[in-house]
Amino acid sequence: MIGIGIIGYGYWGPNLVRNFFEVPDCRVVSVSDIRPDRLAKIGPRYPTVETTLDYRDLLRDPRVDAIAVATPVSTHFELGMEVLRAGKHLLMEKPMTADAEQAQRLVDEADRRELVLAVDHTFVYTEAVRKIRDLARGGDLGEIYYYDSVRVNLGLFQHDVNVIWDLAVHDLSIMDAILPAQPIAVSASGIAHVPGEPEDMAYVTLHFASALMAHVHVNWLAPVKLRRTLVGGSRRMVVYDDLEPSEKIKVYDKGITVNGGAPGALPTNGARHAMMVGYRTGDVWSPQLAVTEALSVELKEFTKCIASGEAPTADGQAGLRVVRILEAATESMRHSGRPVDLSTISRCTI
Amino acid sequence: MIGIGIIGYGYWGPNLVRNFFEVPDCRVVSVSDIRPDRLAKIGPRYPTVETTLDYRDLLRDPRVDAIAVATPVSTHFELGMEVLRAGKHLLMEKPMTADAEQAQRLVDEADRRELVLAVDHTFVYTEAVRKIRDLARGGDLGEIYYYDSVRVNLGLFQHDVNVIWDLAVHDLSIMDAILPAQPIAVSASGIAHVPGEPEDMAYVTLHFASALMAHVHVNWLAPVKLRRTLVGGSRRMVVYDDLEPSEKIKVYDKGITVNGGAPGALPTNGARHAMMVGYRTGDVWSPQLAVTEALSVELKEFTKCIASGEAPTADGQAGLRVVRILEAATESMRHSGRPVDLSTISRCTI
Amino acid sequence: MIGIGIIGYGYWGPNLVRNFFEVPDCRVVSVSDIRPDRLAKIGPRYPTVETTLDYRDLLRDPRVDAIAVATPVSTHFELGMEVLRAGKHLLMEKPMTADAEQAQRLVDEADRRELVLAVDHTFVYTEAVRKIRDLARGGDLGEIYYYDSVRVNLGLFQHDVNVIWDLAVHDLSIMDAILPAQPIAVSASGIAHVPGEPEDMAYVTLHFASALMAHVHVNWLAPVKLRRTLVGGSRRMVVYDDLEPSEKIKVYDKGITVNGGAPGALPTNGARHAMMVGYRTGDVWSPQLAVTEALSVELKEFTKCIASGEAPTADGQAGLRVVRILEAATESMRHSGRPVDLSTISRCTI
Amino acid sequence: MIGIGIIGYGYWGPNLVRNFFEVPDCRVVSVSDIRPDRLAKIGPRYPTVETTLDYRDLLRDPRVDAIAVATPVSTHFELGMEVLRAGKHLLMEKPMTADAEQAQRLVDEADRRELVLAVDHTFVYTEAVRKIRDLARGGDLGEIYYYDSVRVNLGLFQHDVNVIWDLAVHDLSIMDAILPAQPIAVSASGIAHVPGEPEDMAYVTLHFASALMAHVHVNWLAPVKLRRTLVGGSRRMVVYDDLEPSEKIKVYDKGITVNGGAPGALPTNGARHAMMVGYRTGDVWSPQLAVTEALSVELKEFTKCIASGEAPTADGQAGLRVVRILEAATESMRHSGRPVDLSTISRCTI
Repeated sequence: MIGIGIIGYGYWGPNLVRNFFEVPDCRVVSVSDIRPDRLAKIGPRYPTVETTLDYRDLLRDPRVDAIAVATPVSTHFELGMEVLRAGKHLLMEKPMTADAEQAQRLVDEADRRELVLAVDHTFVYTEAVRKIRDLARGGDLGEIYYYDSVRVNLGLFQHDVNVIWDLAVHDLSIMDAILPAQPIAVSASGIAHVPGEPEDMAYVTLHFASALMAHVHVNWLAPVKLRRTLVGGSRRMVVYDDLEPSEKIKVYDKGITVNGGAPGALPTNGARHAMMVGYRTGDVWSPQLAVTEALSVELKEFTKCIASGEAPTADGQAGLRVVRILEAATESMRHSGRPVDLSTISRCTI
Repeated sequence: MIGIGIIGYGYWGPNLVRNFFEVPDCRVVSVSDIRPDRLAKIGPRYPTVETTLDYRDLLRDPRVDAIAVATPVSTHFELGMEVLRAGKHLLMEKPMTADAEQAQRLVDEADRRELVLAVDHTFVYTEAVRKIRDLARGGDLGEIYYYDSVRVNLGLFQHDVNVIWDLAVHDLSIMDAILPAQPIAVSASGIAHVPGEPEDMAYVTLHFASALMAHVHVNWLAPVKLRRTLVGGSRRMVVYDDLEPSEKIKVYDKGITVNGGAPGALPTNGARHAMMVGYRTGDVWSPQLAVTEALSVELKEFTKCIASGEAPTADGQAGLRVVRILEAATESMRHSGRPVDLSTISRCTI
Repeated sequence: MIGIGIIGYGYWGPNLVRNFFEVPDCRVVSVSDIRPDRLAKIGPRYPTVETTLDYRDLLRDPRVDAIAVATPVSTHFELGMEVLRAGKHLLMEKPMTADAEQAQRLVDEADRRELVLAVDHTFVYTEAVRKIRDLARGGDLGEIYYYDSVRVNLGLFQHDVNVIWDLAVHDLSIMDAILPAQPIAVSASGIAHVPGEPEDMAYVTLHFASALMAHVHVNWLAPVKLRRTLVGGSRRMVVYDDLEPSEKIKVYDKGITVNGGAPGALPTNGARHAMMVGYRTGDVWSPQLAVTEALSVELKEFTKCIASGEAPTADGQAGLRVVRILEAATESMRHSGRPVDLSTISRCTI
Repeated sequence: MIGIGIIGYGYWGPNLVRNFFEVPDCRVVSVSDIRPDRLAKIGPRYPTVETTLDYRDLLRDPRVDAIAVATPVSTHFELGMEVLRAGKHLLMEKPMTADAEQAQRLVDEADRRELVLAVDHTFVYTEAVRKIRDLARGGDLGEIYYYDSVRVNLGLFQHDVNVIWDLAVHDLSIMDAILPAQPIAVSASGIAHVPGEPEDMAYVTLHFASALMAHVHVNWLAPVKLRRTLVGGSRRMVVYDDLEPSEKIKVYDKGITVNGGAPGALPTNGARHAMMVGYRTGDVWSPQLAVTEALSVELKEFTKCIASGEAPTADGQAGLRVVRILEAATESMRHSGRPVDLSTISRCTI
C-alpha cells in the first residue's frame, strides 16, 4: 500500500485526489493547502483523508511514500526539492519548473536518491495521444513531416505565466511522446494585449535537424475554442480534434508521390530537373478509442513505477526537455522570433 | 467601350475572359498564349474573340486599351513593363512581381504614364472580406488585436514559387485591405519535403509597431482543406471560414474587460499590481452576404477606374506592399525565422 | 423552510438531491429507495440526509412538505396518489404516468387538495427552450409552420417503455411549452428490432387544426448522437442543436414571400392562378444563453409555487397533455401509423 | 454511333447535353424545346447540335436512335409513349410519370417493342450510393434495420408537383437500389403553407413485411440545407451526408448485441423474460470515393444497354416502383397519414 500526500488543492488537486482513490494499492493520506476554505471541501467528500495548512507535515509523515505537487509553477522547484530530500517519490504538476536549470537539478536529485520523478504530462496518457504515438512509432505514418497544433480559446488569463507556459506545454509534452527526434532550435512570437500582463497569444516553431517542423498556436483571446492537431507523415496523416466527443482521431491515407522528372519538363523551369509530384488519396479511418480517464492511467503508472523502480513515460527527463523548450520560446519571443538554439539553454545532460 | 487583351490562358485566363464578358462597356478583343491547345478552346465558346501566339500582337493593337496578364510570376515584370510602355492599362495577376524592386518599377512606370495599374487581389473583392473590412474600419471590432489565418490543403505543389508566394499572398492582400497599419518586420519558417522543390509548408508572422500581430499558416501537405481566419478585436472578434457554403462570417460579441486591480490581489504576484481580466461573452451574428463573383466586382472596378482615372482598391501600391512582405518572408525562412525588417526590402516610396 | 423527500435514487434521484441542496429555503429531509446499495452513496456526500428503504416513512414524516418521485413510469400513478393523499406537494418524474386516465386522476386529486403538482419536464427550463419560447410567443418567428426534431443515439434500450416514452417525451414537453396550439391527432410508426422488447425507433407526427405540423424522430439504434430541432415560422426559423457547446440556437432571418400571381403565369398550370413564391434570406443570429442548470431553475420554481400557490410552468395539466399524446402515439404505432384522434384518449377536461 | 435527341432544355436538359457529349460512340443530333430563348443558348456552345421548337421533328428523324425527355412530369407519359411508338429508345426524367398506371403502360410498351427504357434516377449512379449498395448487398451491414433520410432546404417551390414528388423521389430511387425488399405500405403526412400550392413539407414512412423501416423527411421551407441519410444494419451502420465535400460516407462499426436473458431479470418486467441488450462500438471508416459525375456514368450505361440489349440499373420497372410509392404517399397524405397498401396502387405486374 503506497501512501500519497498532495500539496495544493486548487484547480487540479481535487482531480488528483479523486483519481488516486481509484488506484489499487494506494491510499491518500493527507492533503495540504495554504487556504483553509479549500481544505474544508475535503472532509465531507473524503472523510478518511487528513488535511493540513503546512505541507511540511506531509514531508515528515512516515505514512506518506509519494507526494504530488499541484501548486503554481514558481513554487515547483523549491517544493520538489523538499519532497525529494524528504525521501518521497514525486509527481510534479506541469510545467515541471520555471526554468531548465531547476528541472535539471530536480532530475539529478531524484537520480541520486533513486526516487521516482514523474511529471504530470496528462495528455500523454490519453487514448488519443497513445494511439497517435503507436501509429507514429509503428511506422504507419511513414516519415513524420510536421506537427501542427492550434490550442486557442477565450480565457483563462494567467498572471504568473505566459500563454506558452500555460497552453503550449501540452503540445510540447505530446510532441515529446510521439516525435522521433528532439528539436534543435525554437522561434516564437507573441504579444500581450493587457499592459503589465504576460503574453496572451503566441506562435511557437520548433526546428529539427531533419525535414521535420513543429508549430503551436496558443491564444487566450480567441472567440472560439479550438484544439486541433495535424500530424503529417509521408505515408498517412492524422487530424486530432480533442473537442470531438467521438472520432477524436482521423487517419488519412493521403500524401504525395514523388518521381524524379525529366529535364526541362516544365517550361518555367529552364534547364532544371523538375520533380513530378503526384497526389495520393485513400480512405479515412477513425479508430475506436477506449474510454479511460488519462489521469487515472497516469497515476496507476506512477504507483507501479514506485513499486518496480521503472521510469514513468513522462519522467523528469521529459519534464526537463519540455521546460527547456518553454524557456527558449520565451527568450525568442522577447526578441521578435529570433531563433534560439536549444543547446544554449542550461547545461543539460540529455 | 474599353478594349481588353489577355496574356495567358492557363488556369486563370479563362476566368478573366468569362468575367470580362459580363462587364458593361467593355469588349474582349484578343487573347494570347504560347500554347495553341489552350487557345483552341476559345473559338467554340467565344467566337468573337481573336487569339494569337504572340502577345506583342496585343501590345500593338489599337483596339486594345487594357491588358490583363495571367502568366507565371517570373514573367510578370517584363510583360507588365511592355504593356505599360505600349500605353495600355494593366491588370496584373498576383503576386504582382517576383521581388519588391520590380514592383516599385512597375508602379513608377504606371504613375509616369498615368495608366491604371491594378493587381488581381481577388479576395479583396469578395463579399466576405469587404464585410470584415467594413467592420474593422467602422470600429465595430474595436482595436484590432490579431489576424490569424490557416490556408492548407493537399496540393497543388508549385515548381516555380514556394507555398508562401502561392497561398499566403491571399492573406497578405486581405490584411492589406483590412488592417489599420502596415507591418514593420516579418519572420517566417518553412520547409521543403521534396528535395529540389520549393518550401511546401510555412508559417509567416508579421510584426507591427503596435500590439497587433498577424500570422499565416500555409501548407500544400495537409490532409484536410482549411480556410479559416480569426480576426480578434477589443470589442468583437470575427471567424471567417471561406469553405462554409453559407455563414462564411461569424461576428462574436466577445472579449475581455480589464480593470486595474488592487495591490497584492493575487498571492503569487508579490507586491505587483495585478490587472483584473474579466471575460465578456454575447451573441453571435452571421451577416448575410450578397452572392457576387469577386472577380466580376474587381473587373468592373478596373474598367471604371480606366474611365475615371481613380485608383483601384488593389492598386500597384497594394501589390508592391504584398510583394515586399513575400520577399521578406522568404528571406526570413532561409534563416530559420530570423525577423527581417521590412524597411530593408528594396527602397520603397510608401 | 420547505422539507423535501425523494422517492427513488437511481439515475435521476442524485441530480434531484444535488440541485435541491442549492435551492434556498428548502431542505432535503429524507431519500428512499428499495436498493440499499444506492442509499449507501448518500451518507458520505450528504451526511444530513436521512435514508429509508420504505417510501412510506416519507409520507408520514411531518418534516416533509413535498416529495419528488423518480421511479419507473409504471409506479408513478400509485406513488403519486399516495403522496397527494398524504397531503404532500408532488414533483413527478416524466412521463407523468403510464396513461392519460392516470394523469387526469392525479391532476384532479392535486386540485381537490390544493397541492402543487409539478412534472419534471426539465427541458422546458433550459435557457435554450426558454429563448425559443420567448421568440415564438413574442411573435419574432411569425406564424409557426412546423416543429421538427431528431433525437437519436445508440442506446440506452429501455425494457419497460418504448423509445417514444423514453425520448419523444422531451420533445412533446418542449412543444407543449412553445407551440401556440394543441394537436388534434397523432400518427406514429415504429419497430422493434429485438424480439419481445419495446420499439427502438419511431416517428411521431402531430396534426393540428391549423397549417402547423410537428414531427419527432426518436431512435436508440443510430450510429451517431443527434439532438437537432427545426422550428419554422413565417418570419424567422430556428435551428436548435442541443449538442453544440455554444451557439445552441441559431435564428435564421429567412423565409418565403407569397404574392397572388397572374393567370396562366406558368405553362404547366393551365388556367390556374399561380402563387408567386419568393425567397427571403438575411442574417443569422445566435443569442447568448445564460449558463444555468435547468433542473435548478425548475426546483426553485417548484418551491416558489409551494410558497405562493401559483401553478408551475410544467404543471399536472402539461404532464397530462404530454401523456395523452404518448398514449395516442403508441396506439397509432400499433396500427402502422393510422392517425389517432386525441379527443378519443381518455376523457379530458382540457 | 448512337444518335441522341433531347426533348426539353430547361433546368436539366443542359446537363444531359453536356454529359452526352462525353459519352463515346454517341452523338447529340437535335434538341427541342417550346421556348426559343432556351434553344438560343445551344448554338454558341454546341454548333453541331440542331434545335427545333417541335419535338416531333425528333421522332421522325432517322438519325435519332434514342431520346431523353426532360420536361415537366405531367407531360412524361404522353411524350414517352410517342417516343416509344416512334421506335426510339427512351431515357425518362424522374419521376417517370404522374401515376403508376402510366408508368406500367410505358413499361409494357417498351417491352413489346424491345426498346430500352431507362429512368433518370441519377443518385443511383453516384459513387456514394453505389458504395452503400455494395456494402448492403455484400453483407457488410448485416440485416438492414432502417433507412432514414433528411432532404430539406429553402426552396425551390414547385407549382405542379408536391415536395414528395420533387425531393423524396431521390430517396425512393436510392432505396430501390440498396434495400433488400420492396415496401408493402406507405404512410405520409404533409402540409402546404401557401394556399392553393402543393404540400411544401412532408414525412413519408415505408412499411415492409420484415423488421425494416424507411422514412424520408422532405421540406422546401427549412432554414438550412441538409442531405443526410442513416442506414442502420445489424452489423454496421452508414451515415451518408451528400453535402460533405469529402468523406460523404462514414461506416460505423457499431450496433447492439442481444442475449436471451434470465427470467425476471428486471423488477419492472414481472415474469417476462428480458433480453439483455449490449452495445458494440468500433472504428469508423470513410471509404475513398472516385470522382465521377453520376449523370455521365448513367448515360454511358444507357448507350451501352442500347447496344447490348441489357436492362439499365434504373429501368422502367424501377421507375414504376418509385412512382407507385409516390402515388401511395400522396394518397396517404391526403388522409392525414392513413397507411396505404401498395398492392392497391394500380394493377402492377411486379
